[in-house]
Parts: sequence; structure tokens; C-alpha cells
Amino acid sequence: MTTQFDNVTVLKQGNVYFDGKCVSHTVVFADGSKKTLGVILPSSLTFSTGVAEIMDVTSGSCRVRQKDQQAWTTYSSGESFEVPANSSFDIETLETLNYVCNYA
Amino acid sequence: MTTQFDNVTVLKQGNVYFDGKCVSHTVVFADGSKKTLGVILPSSLTFSTGVAEIMDVTSGSCRVRQKDQQAWTTYSSGESFEVPANSSFDIETLETLNYVCNYA
Repeated sequence: MTTQFDNVTVLKQGNVYFDGKCVSHTVVFADGSKKTLGVILPSSLTFSTGVAEIMDVTSGSCRVRQKDQQAWTTYSSGESFEVPANSSFDIETLETLNYVCNYA
Repeated sequence: MTTQFDNVTVLKQGNVYFDGKCVSHTVVFADGSKKTLGVILPSSLTFSTGVAEIMDVTSGSCRVRQKDQQAWTTYSSGESFEVPANSSFDIETLETLNYVCNYA
């Protein structure tokens, strides 16, 4: 797992969700694709998706429950989970989580 | 005032201060110099400096009081303030602030 993105553009305006429980910055790659690089503070949140997403946990850990599912799955640093398009997921973080969100 | 940094490296690990009241990401430039790109949530905080810093407000506004000073100065988007090395500053944000921190 790399610790940085090279040769990218980063947007100065941050993305702030849930009163700051989640803060991210948008990274744009040479091919025009985007990822967000973010932090989720200890909290229980529900995110909705437009396009499908792959969330890479880069530090910390979290529990995730996909829409209409009962089971929770724990993910730690170096692990990823996919969320379908037009869906949502519940996420619980006990410690500060760093993530990269990849968009389909 | 540009809205992005191009051809940079961005570190995946975020910087979290004051229980998440301030979150930033580190941007590394081709010449090896670094800036941080951050968000400060509505709060009253005190930051210390090692090297001198220039804080560029990119959105939102804040009041700033330099170390050992009585006066507060308000800064808004597009404005900057300097903080000497080995000093500190009090900062009050009434709305979410986006900033770029430039290091001497």
C-alpha cells in the first residue's frame, strides 16, 4: 500500500460531512479520474453512493454494514470494501480512520 | 487565488488536531517543499509554530490573535497572515475555514 499519490492535482476546497466528522480532499489524476483522501473521526455515520465506490482503509479501522444487510464487517489498514452504485453504507469508527475513496 | 495545486504529491495520512477540529493533508512540491491543505471547523484554537508560517485563507473567515498581542484581526477568503517562528496564534472560526499553510 503506497503512502502517497504522486503527480496529481489536489483541490484546495475540502469536503466536510456530518459537521466535520468526515473531512476529505479531492485528488485529480492525469487521466481526469478523481479520488478523495479523507479522515473519519470516531463516529457512526451513513454514507450514500452515487456511482459505485471502493473504500481503501489506509489507517485505523472501522465496522461497515452495507444497505439492507444485518452483518457488520470490520476493515483495518490495508483492507478495502466495495459499495454498489445508488446504495449506502453504515460505518462505525472507534479510532480516527484514514481512507481513500475510489469512484467507479 | 488558484483553486488547486497541480503536479504535486499528496500524503495519504491526514493530520488531525484538537480532536478533529482541524484536519489537513500534506502536499509536497517538486522542489521538496511542503504545504498543508486544511479545514478548521467552527472553534477557538491555539496553534504553535516551529518555522514561520504564512496561512492563506481559501474559504470562510476567522479571527486571529498573535502571541502576546491583544488585538484580533479578521481574515477572509483570499487573505493571508504570517506567524513568526517559535510562536503561536489564537484562531477563532465561526464558519468552516479552508486554508493553505505555507512554511518558511
